[in-house]
Amino acid sequence: MSSLWGRFFRVSTFGESHGRAVGAVVDGMPAGMALEVEAIQRELDRRRPGGSPFVSARREPDQVEILSGLGGGKTLGTPIAMVVRNRDVRSADYREIAELFRPGHADFSYFEKYGVAPQPGGGRASGRETVGRVAAGAVAKVLLASAGVSLRAYTVQIGAVEAARVDLDFAAADPLACADPEAAEAMAREVTAAVRDGDSVGGVVELAASGVPAGWGDPVFGKLDATLAGAMVSIGAVKGVEIGDGFAVAGRRGSQNNDQMDAGGFRSNHAGGILGGISTGQTIVLRLAVKPTPSIARPQATLDLAGSERTIEIKGRHDPCICPRIVPVAEAMAALVLADAYLAQRATGGFGQ
Amino acid sequence: MSSLWGRFFRVSTFGESHGRAVGAVVDGMPAGMALEVEAIQRELDRRRPGGSPFVSARREPDQVEILSGLGGGKTLGTPIAMVVRNRDVRSADYREIAELFRPGHADFSYFEKYGVAPQPGGGRASGRETVGRVAAGAVAKVLLASAGVSLRAYTVQIGAVEAARVDLDFAAADPLACADPEAAEAMAREVTAAVRDGDSVGGVVELAASGVPAGWGDPVFGKLDATLAGAMVSIGAVKGVEIGDGFAVAGRRGSQNNDQMDAGGFRSNHAGGILGGISTGQTIVLRLAVKPTPSIARPQATLDLAGSERTIEIKGRHDPCICPRIVPVAEAMAALVLADAYLAQRATGGFGQ
Amino acid sequence: MSSLWGRFFRVSTFGESHGRAVGAVVDGMPAGMALEVEAIQRELDRRRPGGSPFVSARREPDQVEILSGLGGGKTLGTPIAMVVRNRDVRSADYREIAELFRPGHADFSYFEKYGVAPQPGGGRASGRETVGRVAAGAVAKVLLASAGVSLRAYTVQIGAVEAARVDLDFAAADPLACADPEAAEAMAREVTAAVRDGDSVGGVVELAASGVPAGWGDPVFGKLDATLAGAMVSIGAVKGVEIGDGFAVAGRRGSQNNDQMDAGGFRSNHAGGILGGISTGQTIVLRLAVKPTPSIARPQATLDLAGSERTIEIKGRHDPCICPRIVPVAEAMAALVLADAYLAQRATGGFGQ
Amino acid sequence: MSSLWGRFFRVSTFGESHGRAVGAVVDGMPAGMALEVEAIQRELDRRRPGGSPFVSARREPDQVEILSGLGGGKTLGTPIAMVVRNRDVRSADYREIAELFRPGHADFSYFEKYGVAPQPGGGRASGRETVGRVAAGAVAKVLLASAGVSLRAYTVQIGAVEAARVDLDFAAADPLACADPEAAEAMAREVTAAVRDGDSVGGVVELAASGVPAGWGDPVFGKLDATLAGAMVSIGAVKGVEIGDGFAVAGRRGSQNNDQMDAGGFRSNHAGGILGGISTGQTIVLRLAVKPTPSIARPQATLDLAGSERTIEIKGRHDPCICPRIVPVAEAMAALVLADAYLAQRATGGFGQ
Repeated sequence: MSSLWGRFFRVSTFGESHGRAVGAVVDGMPAGMALEVEAIQRELDRRRPGGSPFVSARREPDQVEILSGLGGGKTLGTPIAMVVRNRDVRSADYREIAELFRPGHADFSYFEKYGVAPQPGGGRASGRETVGRVAAGAVAKVLLASAGVSLRAYTVQIGAVEAARVDLDFAAADPLACADPEAAEAMAREVTAAVRDGDSVGGVVELAASGVPAGWGDPVFGKLDATLAGAMVSIGAVKGVEIGDGFAVAGRRGSQNNDQMDAGGFRSNHAGGILGGISTGQTIVLRLAVKPTPSIARPQATLDLAGSERTIEIKGRHDPCICPRIVPVAEAMAALVLADAYLAQRATGGFGQ
Repeated sequence: MSSLWGRFFRVSTFGESHGRAVGAVVDGMPAGMALEVEAIQRELDRRRPGGSPFVSARREPDQVEILSGLGGGKTLGTPIAMVVRNRDVRSADYREIAELFRPGHADFSYFEKYGVAPQPGGGRASGRETVGRVAAGAVAKVLLASAGVSLRAYTVQIGAVEAARVDLDFAAADPLACADPEAAEAMAREVTAAVRDGDSVGGVVELAASGVPAGWGDPVFGKLDATLAGAMVSIGAVKGVEIGDGFAVAGRRGSQNNDQMDAGGFRSNHAGGILGGISTGQTIVLRLAVKPTPSIARPQATLDLAGSERTIEIKGRHDPCICPRIVPVAEAMAALVLADAYLAQRATGGFGQ
Repeated sequence: MSSLWGRFFRVSTFGESHGRAVGAVVDGMPAGMALEVEAIQRELDRRRPGGSPFVSARREPDQVEILSGLGGGKTLGTPIAMVVRNRDVRSADYREIAELFRPGHADFSYFEKYGVAPQPGGGRASGRETVGRVAAGAVAKVLLASAGVSLRAYTVQIGAVEAARVDLDFAAADPLACADPEAAEAMAREVTAAVRDGDSVGGVVELAASGVPAGWGDPVFGKLDATLAGAMVSIGAVKGVEIGDGFAVAGRRGSQNNDQMDAGGFRSNHAGGILGGISTGQTIVLRLAVKPTPSIARPQATLDLAGSERTIEIKGRHDPCICPRIVPVAEAMAALVLADAYLAQRATGGFGQ
Repeated sequence: MSSLWGRFFRVSTFGESHGRAVGAVVDGMPAGMALEVEAIQRELDRRRPGGSPFVSARREPDQVEILSGLGGGKTLGTPIAMVVRNRDVRSADYREIAELFRPGHADFSYFEKYGVAPQPGGGRASGRETVGRVAAGAVAKVLLASAGVSLRAYTVQIGAVEAARVDLDFAAADPLACADPEAAEAMAREVTAAVRDGDSVGGVVELAASGVPAGWGDPVFGKLDATLAGAMVSIGAVKGVEIGDGFAVAGRRGSQNNDQMDAGGFRSNHAGGILGGISTGQTIVLRLAVKPTPSIARPQATLDLAGSERTIEIKGRHDPCICPRIVPVAEAMAALVLADAYLAQRATGGFGQ
């Protein structure tokens, strides 16, 4: 297991779906910064299921407790430990399938690696693990805000429906986090159709980070886009990531894809705000391919732990489309990466000038 | 700068395009393994330009010298330092454009970060940097071969032309590394058309790793796909990465995307050989979006270091399509990731059984 | 702040003296190992103050709660988060001195670094921080026990009194952890004399690790002795460390200091079980210089936060000799180092044979 | 093998005693700093043997070549690779003893770990490995000089002779690096007596770093003294390390050991410039226990690789007292640690003020 992230702004997360608690320890948050528990709770509330017909019905208060690192409402420079108790644990839903490898889930690979039978609710491989990421990301966002950086993620595709434009205010209120008011209804229909069929549906989440000054990122292995890509794919269900125009560049000519410059700066942003692994000062744009939720009610062929063929029908609470749940997690992971890059640039930047 | 990669199988690379040398130091290669300089030279020869009309005319012998870590043809367990001298350095080609930010290149962002004017040939941001990666990757491949793992990359798209099937033998001999004999000619036409127009063209490179046993990869932040994604995007010109079916999953239902199992194992491999960040034993499949080479002869608007508007026409030796050059580098980076995952799994696997 | 330790067996600790809790997250403990909360509690009980006239009167139940990483009494391979609530927080004892830099404490340097006024009880610089170390060390001990490794620390000097021999059973029961039954009474007198004078006294703690096979440790920067030395000096109050004969070697000839070998193995163990940074299979022996507790009742000259000269007399609960408190912490830190070295050796050892 | 050091200012070293070359790659040196090869060569010349009757007669030009990272006499912010070729390789001296484990050397433990027979000249375990440390340390010194930090090491004990005072100018010229003009002659006699007896002698090296501002170091595991201690013990032949008064504190009372403060600052420096793991602004003082050179002419009992009892008499070139050779290496390692701490403090310091 490797539940540590970052080189300067370092995070250690922990917790299984049906264990006692999930959480994170942040090491590297500078001292003297105003940090309120509400800032963390707010992000956790965004992540929390239960808010709409489109997401899992599991209801957790997900109240975060900060165990350390604060004094008088300010950071002490010491590790910030945050814990969220698991409460709504209905292991019964899982008991009957504990002996089966759920298709599309990590049950088989965890069993092969750890020699441990599938844990209720997916254990560490559950989306509940992202509580720690979001809590840590909330701390990172406070650091980034002090540097003028903000980031937002939103859904730009569900099933066959693609968003044509981005309206951040609309996305913030939409239950699917859809960025395009015109497309929202059609996206919702994709989800309800999947639910009706005992099925689920995939999508694409986009993330934009604005205010990142030129100069963040550390070539050649710590390139900002490389680190962001790794962070995004570390989120469960993410099967691909694009920076800027992403796979569209494959069909392009250099003359179409290069971002030319004039006195007003870059004329375009095909690169997605990163060149040579270093931020250019433009908005950083990423897109994440989100697979359809693997937990579906329809019968599927699988094996049990003993290797016998079985049929599985997954009951319980499951999001038919995971995109809106990915949104706050993508923001959190991007925040961790950017906070780390910010501190790294503070460390070595500004010499020789 | 962050030119170190890996946690167990660790690599440090160095070198600028027009400096004295490029190379790598590998720390973590186990002792007692047969390693011949030819194994490294062979990979470097694959990476070397000059082999076809489609790639840069720069001709470097790219002879590797191993400075340490070997005794009697076997690894000593000590760091393996490898150096390749730069010889064919035609800085004159670059001198006239040294004051200009080349569109699509890292000149601007490096200048903003390091306060250093664009280096001849791109300096550290040049593709020449990948010599170190390929040399280190060649060592990793030896380690992986001992575990039965092999990996191959090849071109599956150039411009508008997509490969319909994969013929590894054909790809190995094709100057564009095209995987599909039927598509090779059309791909070549895409490149020659771009050359004729003083332009360049993008593409897609696919990578397949076979023989990886189930159990490699370390959730949640060291997931095998996350680490591979970060490694791939750390390669210059890569703007996106897909694992398994990648972005295609966005339009799918869960029932279509889940890989069901029966007594014969998985019935499909939409997941690309990785579930929950851990290898499943199936072939690992990745795809990389490769942007069109930014160095093009056509005039482009840009700025000089002083901020004045200028027009740039880039001469010199440049690959019109970077895909075949990415192929050995993608293999090298995947090898570094898998070698690291292999050692990690040796460290903590097999307890409690 | 850097509260993470280890490369393979990785630990993240957190918590201030008078905050809500202290604890640790262990990442890298293999799956499938029997681990009971009692094993951790037992070590915490050894660390806990309050057991004798010689140690601080602060009384904490120090009940550990394991939040994650366990299932059915076995490790899951996932992070093990452990929390101990702070209960007996008498901040009043500290309030009057909160504006003063206590001599010998970290108040001044923390203020300079973090810009934060001295925290009650020393905050993160308090010995209470070692709860996290001891909890994590207890997990490491379980891993090491499976490899046949055990370790023990004990007091070999207090003030002017030195132990002449080592009796582990005696040390285990002695309130000062004195290793020598003959010296225990004299050591106790050193402490009571210091208490009577409103003063404190220093000492030396020795640690012996047995059962470590030959081959652990990673030259040149991850040498086993180097890593142990760093770990030991990371413990508050430790001002020096010796491996094997330590500073005594300065006065020796090579012919006296070399450990010669014959068919029975090494004839002596001046090296302390480590050669070239790698374990030899002999018992590993370290010694730690422990400074006298800086908190003393006698008046001392100091400054307040505003830089004015002041006199300080420190009241409250303080151990007059910190040696017995260092004992379990030294064991814990050594266990972390050895667990890490064990996993490292599993990762790369055994090839080519 | 773990030949990487540092978290921000990162160094990768390589090379065996009788291989082709030794060297280092520095990753993390900021851009835009004036760096001349002479600055590195000068430190290597200090490290080089051959300067006096007291040190090994091996004569290497030890000419460093910088392969990367520089442009126009300034750092580019990219990795700085430095190589020193091995030339004076007299493997014949070692051939006859290649089958024997030399007492006090790493032959046995390397054999156990790597399964590799002792390499000529000690291979990676040779003092020649320190060329890479010294080259990297020279770069670190340039960074530190820009921050006003300087450091010096010198010999304060050889055999039974201790220095009573420190004269840096004298030490710089003395062949044994003795700090005390009055003690130098007696120290020299200790060495010549050992040589006469076919033996060697140990000593103590002290290091002082001045100009380090308050605030460097990262509790709890990255404490400045902990990191320095680990760095020092990573140097071959170092068997102990003291910070400030070190082991002398064991016999002290708190009232004697605490450094009280008045308007003029600290009244004393028993702590050695570090409190709570953070620099106080005072001079940082360390002492290293250096064992007598294990290579001695006197016959010693040992085993051969097959386990048979043998007698060994070590010929060839060997320093009878390693202290003067340790001096530049100790400075280099301290420079690496302090450069790292400097960058770390730049990263997270200065917020909230």
